[in-house]
Amino acid sequence: MDSGRAVILLSGGLDSATLLALARERGYSCHALSIAYGQRHRAELDAARRVARAIGVAEHRLVDIPALGQHGGSALTDDTLAVPEGPVQGIPVTYVPARNTVFLALALAWAEVLDARDIFIGVNAVDYSGYPDCRPEFIAAFQVLANLATRAGVHGTRFVIHAPLIAMSKADIIREGARLGIDYSQTVSCYQADEDGRACGRCDACRLRSAGFRAAGYPDPTLYQRSFA
Amino acid sequence: MDSGRAVILLSGGLDSATLLALARERGYSCHALSIAYGQRHRAELDAARRVARAIGVAEHRLVDIPALGQHGGSALTDDTLAVPEGPVQGIPVTYVPARNTVFLALALAWAEVLDARDIFIGVNAVDYSGYPDCRPEFIAAFQVLANLATRAGVHGTRFVIHAPLIAMSKADIIREGARLGIDYSQTVSCYQADEDGRACGRCDACRLRSAGFRAAGYPDPTLYQRSFA
Repeated sequence: MDSGRAVILLSGGLDSATLLALARERGYSCHALSIAYGQRHRAELDAARRVARAIGVAEHRLVDIPALGQHGGSALTDDTLAVPEGPVQGIPVTYVPARNTVFLALALAWAEVLDARDIFIGVNAVDYSGYPDCRPEFIAAFQVLANLATRAGVHGTRFVIHAPLIAMSKADIIREGARLGIDYSQTVSCYQADEDGRACGRCDACRLRSAGFRAAGYPDPTLYQRSFA
Repeated sequence: MDSGRAVILLSGGLDSATLLALARERGYSCHALSIAYGQRHRAELDAARRVARAIGVAEHRLVDIPALGQHGGSALTDDTLAVPEGPVQGIPVTYVPARNTVFLALALAWAEVLDARDIFIGVNAVDYSGYPDCRPEFIAAFQVLANLATRAGVHGTRFVIHAPLIAMSKADIIREGARLGIDYSQTVSCYQADEDGRACGRCDACRLRSAGFRAAGYPDPTLYQRSFA
């Protein structure tokens, strides 16, 4: 099956690795886009490279946009804000202002040049209910925008923003990834992984991930900075 | 009058200089954002600095996003595509894929951190009718998106995307700028200005600009690379 070209936003985490494998299974020629925006660690970009190689892509681009980090306002890009290590209420301090809007805009720019009309993003509204730009209504609004914003949209191409993980639990995503043969030890989800990509085991992203493996009934292959005996 | 903070997209051209002066007149504390995206020349960014200083801003940020240029697909960022030197039909080759979507996304990210709810963009649907992302329906769709995409939007702040030049002719814009005391010799509109900011006099942007001064009844203060005697 040849579904044409697609742009896949690939962070190097568990969700976007599953997303890429799903897009491959659906027959897309995958153009993976990873965006460095002043994250505290580069370990997840290394993970994105490993994942792209393992799953297979037509091309992998890494774009650097330090401005998002320079704006500040998020614990993921600002060393003066602590990453919380317990359950989080409301919109977390790890929310990066307008991050998914910027990511989708860059994906759209590349898609238009590639003549691709499909864009995949691994947002999830179950685990990240506090992030406004992980909600279905945000994705729908961006799709409307994409078809007004571009030459392709004006000329009749219809862009589709695919968010196949949006309503899945972490355990569902892990089961889907296991079916697709993903080696999750290559992925990094932790908000404060060390240089070797080892996870802290304490932040919100680590908690969600390890609970997901437990609920899915799979052993957790994550490399942690210390053992949790 | 204190209207609060606003983010102003400032390219260094005639339109965005007028935009900034209008926002100042309306009482906003202006945070100017200029974006380098692999333009053929840096002269317009130098112009943006001059304009910001002359009109007055609370802060001027320059963000570099080479990725937009690396995507290719536009004569403004790709040296292998020629800038047309005559009237243009349809969507011009100088259209940069999804440019205004990326610009507004970055402006939105900064606005959210600044606690600003007003964003100004100098798009014009009269002269740039061929650019899909200069149309009123694009601006309206981005405003909807902004209020879904952000923490501020979710918590009740309403972002407003201001495009006060959108329905004005170039002559109208120049008259407005003259009223506001703008020195247009500091601005650069040319698609292929030289390092000193001198205009080619032949590209579409130069044609529109010089016709605008003629129609407005003002002498054209533009510095050209050669005289048109």
